[in-house]
Amino acid sequence: MSLTPLAFEAAAWCAERLDEVELALSQWVGVGAPESLAAPMRYAVLGGGKRIRALLAMAAQEAVQAPREAGLRAACAVELIHAYSLVHDDMPCMDNDVLRRGKPTVHVQFGEANALLAGDALQAQAFELLTPQDNSLPPVQQAQLCGLLARAAGAGGMAGGQAIDLASVGLALDEPQLRHMHRLKTGALLQASVLMGAACAPSLKAQTVAALTAFADALGLAFQVVDDVLDVTADAATLGKTAGKDAANDKPTYVSLLGLAKAQALAHSLLEQAMAALAESDLPDTRALAALAERVVQRTS
Amino acid sequence: MSLTPLAFEAAAWCAERLDEVELALSQWVGVGAPESLAAPMRYAVLGGGKRIRALLAMAAQEAVQAPREAGLRAACAVELIHAYSLVHDDMPCMDNDVLRRGKPTVHVQFGEANALLAGDALQAQAFELLTPQDNSLPPVQQAQLCGLLARAAGAGGMAGGQAIDLASVGLALDEPQLRHMHRLKTGALLQASVLMGAACAPSLKAQTVAALTAFADALGLAFQVVDDVLDVTADAATLGKTAGKDAANDKPTYVSLLGLAKAQALAHSLLEQAMAALAESDLPDTRALAALAERVVQRTS
Repeated sequence: MSLTPLAFEAAAWCAERLDEVELALSQWVGVGAPESLAAPMRYAVLGGGKRIRALLAMAAQEAVQAPREAGLRAACAVELIHAYSLVHDDMPCMDNDVLRRGKPTVHVQFGEANALLAGDALQAQAFELLTPQDNSLPPVQQAQLCGLLARAAGAGGMAGGQAIDLASVGLALDEPQLRHMHRLKTGALLQASVLMGAACAPSLKAQTVAALTAFADALGLAFQVVDDVLDVTADAATLGKTAGKDAANDKPTYVSLLGLAKAQALAHSLLEQAMAALAESDLPDTRALAALAERVVQRTS
Repeated sequence: MSLTPLAFEAAAWCAERLDEVELALSQWVGVGAPESLAAPMRYAVLGGGKRIRALLAMAAQEAVQAPREAGLRAACAVELIHAYSLVHDDMPCMDNDVLRRGKPTVHVQFGEANALLAGDALQAQAFELLTPQDNSLPPVQQAQLCGLLARAAGAGGMAGGQAIDLASVGLALDEPQLRHMHRLKTGALLQASVLMGAACAPSLKAQTVAALTAFADALGLAFQVVDDVLDVTADAATLGKTAGKDAANDKPTYVSLLGLAKAQALAHSLLEQAMAALAESDLPDTRALAALAERVVQRTS
C-alpha cells in the first residue's frame, strides 16, 4: 500500500514558516547589543520583507528532512545578511535611498553612523546564529553553514556583485556580464539559502547537491529578472521602495537589455529550468521549494 | 636529563611571524574579488599595521602547540576584522579621518562606496579564511573559530563597543563605563585573537582557557589605556594618524578621566596582571605571549 501524500497548501506552508522565522528573528536580533545598536538592528530586520531567502532555507531543510532548529538558524542568518546589505546599500554613498518597505531607511531613522554599525553587527550576528554555544547544532554543520554563508556574502558573492554593479553605472554591459553581476549580487545569497537549508542534513548525495545548486542558480537569476521587470511595471506604493530608479540611474537591467517582453519570457524560462532541476534532486518532497520558485516569478512586488 | 630551553629572542620571533602573516595576507586578501573591490580590500589590509592581533593569535597557537596553518588562518582572520573596522571607522559619517598609517584612508583613496563595500567584504572574508574547503582545518576548529570571531566582532563585542563610543561623545563616562566600552570596542577582538590561537588545539584544560582569558582581558584594557596615553604624548608622524583627536572630539579617555600619570601607572599594573595570569595557564612556554604583552604596553605608536 503506498501512502497518498497530503495535499500541499503553499500559502498555508509559507504563512506558518513565516511566523516561525519572524518569531525567531524577534527573539534573536540585537540581543546582547547596547540599546543604541539594538534599535537600528531590529528596525532593519523586523516587521517587513518577503523573507524569500528564509523560506528557501526552510523549504530546503524540510526537503532533506534535517532538524528544524538548524533550518531556522540558517534561515535567520541569510535574512540578517540580506538585511545588512540593504542597510548599507541604502546609505547616501551608495544608492542614497530614503524609503524601504514603505518606511524611512535605517540611516534616515537612526543616522548614518548607526546604520553603518548596525549593518556591520548584523553581518557578524549571522555567524553568531550559525555557531550556537549550546551544542544545538553539530560542529560539522556549523562549519559548513559558516563556509557557505561567508562565500555567498563576500567578495566572490554578494559584495563582489555590488562592486561590479557600482563600477558598471553608465556602462553598456552585455547579457553575460549582466548575468555574472547578478549571479554574484543577488544569486549567491539566494543559492546559499537553498544550500544552507540542505546542509542542515548530516550528509547529502552529490546528485542532490548538484540539482539544488542548479535549481537555486536558475531561481536566483529569475529573481533578478523579475526585479528588473517590476522596476518598470510596478509603482512605488506596491514596491514599498522608489520605482523606476534603475532606469533613472542609467543602470543596466534585463529590461534595458532585452526589452520588457523578452525579459518576462526569460523569467518564465528560468522558472522551468528551476523546476526541471528540482525533478533531478532525488528528494521525496520538493513541493515547498517548487511553490517558492513560482512565488518568486509571479510576485508583483 | 632536562632540556635547556633555547633563549627566546622576542624581536626575531616577531619578525619571523610578521613575515609569515604578511605573506599569507598578501596571498589571501581579495582573492576572487572583482578588481574594483580587491584593490581597496588589499589597500586596507596590506603594507602597514603592527599586526598585534595576528601576533597574539600565533603566539597563543604556539603556546598550545597547535598546527601552524590553523594559527595563521586565525591570525589573518582577526586582522581582516580589525582592518574592516578601521575602514568603516575612518569614513565621513564616523570619525571622518583622512590619514591612516601615514597614507590616505580607504574612502579618500577609493571613494566612500568602495570603502563601505571593501569593509563588508573583509568581514566576510575573515569567515572564509576560517572555513577552508580543503579539509586543512577540522570542522570542530572551524566552528569554534567562527563562533569566537563572530562574537568578538559583533554587537556584544567590537561593533557594540563602537556604538557605545558613538553614543558617549560629550558624556561624562565614569571609569566602569569607560572600561566596559573599551572591553567591547578593542578588548573583545584582542581577547579573541588569543583565544582563537588557543582554539587551534584540539582540546584545552579549563584552567588554560581561564588563564588565557584573564591574560587577554588585562592586555586588551592595557592596549586601550596606552592608546589614550599616546594620543596626548605622541605626535602624528609617530602615530601615523591624527594625534590629539580624542581630546579635540571631547571623547572620554583614560587620560581625561585619570590624568596622564595615573593612566600610565594603570597600564603597567594591567601588564603585571596579564603576566600573572599567564603564569597560571599551565602552558610550558608562554614567552611569545609575554613578549607581546610587554610590547603592547611599551610601544610608542
